[in-house]
Amino acid sequence: MRLVRVQTDAGPRWGSLEDGGIVLLTGSFADGFHPTPACIPTPARLLAPVQPTKIICAARNYAEHAKEMGGEVPDEPRIFLKAPSAVVGPGDAIALPPGAGRVDPEGELAVVIGRRSRHLTAADALQAVFGYTLLNDVTARVYQKKDGIFGRAKSFDSFCPVGPWVDTAFDPSDAAIQTAVNGEVRAKGRTSDMIFSITDLLVWISAVMTLEPGDVIATGTPPGVAPLESGDVVEVTVEGLGSLKNPVE
Amino acid sequence: MRLVRVQTDAGPRWGSLEDGGIVLLTGSFADGFHPTPACIPTPARLLAPVQPTKIICAARNYAEHAKEMGGEVPDEPRIFLKAPSAVVGPGDAIALPPGAGRVDPEGELAVVIGRRSRHLTAADALQAVFGYTLLNDVTARVYQKKDGIFGRAKSFDSFCPVGPWVDTAFDPSDAAIQTAVNGEVRAKGRTSDMIFSITDLLVWISAVMTLEPGDVIATGTPPGVAPLESGDVVEVTVEGLGSLKNPVE
Repeated sequence: MRLVRVQTDAGPRWGSLEDGGIVLLTGSFADGFHPTPACIPTPARLLAPVQPTKIICAARNYAEHAKEMGGEVPDEPRIFLKAPSAVVGPGDAIALPPGAGRVDPEGELAVVIGRRSRHLTAADALQAVFGYTLLNDVTARVYQKKDGIFGRAKSFDSFCPVGPWVDTAFDPSDAAIQTAVNGEVRAKGRTSDMIFSITDLLVWISAVMTLEPGDVIATGTPPGVAPLESGDVVEVTVEGLGSLKNPVE
Repeated sequence: MRLVRVQTDAGPRWGSLEDGGIVLLTGSFADGFHPTPACIPTPARLLAPVQPTKIICAARNYAEHAKEMGGEVPDEPRIFLKAPSAVVGPGDAIALPPGAGRVDPEGELAVVIGRRSRHLTAADALQAVFGYTLLNDVTARVYQKKDGIFGRAKSFDSFCPVGPWVDTAFDPSDAAIQTAVNGEVRAKGRTSDMIFSITDLLVWISAVMTLEPGDVIATGTPPGVAPLESGDVVEVTVEGLGSLKNPVE
């Protein structure tokens, strides 16, 4: 299933993206989703397909990106949180904060949690996954460096495009991932180049904190960073999963 | 009003703490709270009186604490996020993570947001406040130092005791604040010693991100830190607001 969220006359609704349109669903990540008889045409604009209680991001999870950022390759994951208020959907504008200076995209594969989880093991970790989506971990580099901690640099409103859907059948083990700006590829890699695998991250993070249904784990960005400017269009693509495209303003 | 959250036979409910017991309320931070005819006896244990979409913490917001942590007094706020999954209520145990080493309490005055807010001004910032509560920003010091970023060190489950209530009439401008372990005061200060006032923080943070009703801003810890050990009881007190007490295990 490709889970989407769409604006309808009756408010936002969950749906399943099919060839002929969108089958509206009832339910939630916690309770599961169930089809209704209602099917609507696929709209031009989808909403972000998640409403997480938290967004947990792995920093420097591709060795080449860790090196280009001047850091050591870590011996265990390093994580930070992005504010849920930063989430926008596919096609929504990324707003450059006035005076922030350099702002970079970081295209990432993201894991969406399907059930409440603590202390996952390598054997059961992937059973906690609902599906996969794309996430752009937009970052204000000047503030990231000045603050040292990432609370401001990563959580401006619109700094977390997510979507266009959550794919429940995607195989994340070895897919090409890239970030392009105005059609030019700026960052690329393969998900198999992650230092810590998705299973590693799930086990490690769930040893720290309870994962809730619908929570999002961003798995890190491959090498290649480049500043965004107003008028740019940034597109994150994961082979076999889809593309997440957002204008910059 | 002193807003509380209590466990009832019909699940958790919001309430107003009164002399004779708790008047149950309907509503939410977003829609406002309204009394019902139901009044229950005050239970021995209250739940955390918030369910925030995000918890935004000001780092080093008391000059003496900034100095003791080896840092410069900042020229603007530095913020980080704590995971909502770390929230526990008054009386709930703070669980020391195995192998984490030193874990410190940081008793703080916390602001609870009453309405959706972006780009607050000094003139209107305090109108966005629903009320005030106490928060213990429990911190794993070894991980804080090792990671540099605070995603792990501040967000273990149970690392965010909040409560016991949200007081809508509290005046935060100059109250004594202290953190005691087993009855011995380890940290103390006055809220008037904050480097950035509550108004400053509201204006600055809301220039970065949208504040949602029920969101929590922790305003920083006064000087004095000390490690916790299993069996300790830690109590954060703000004069005129109340005390938040939690055992450590």
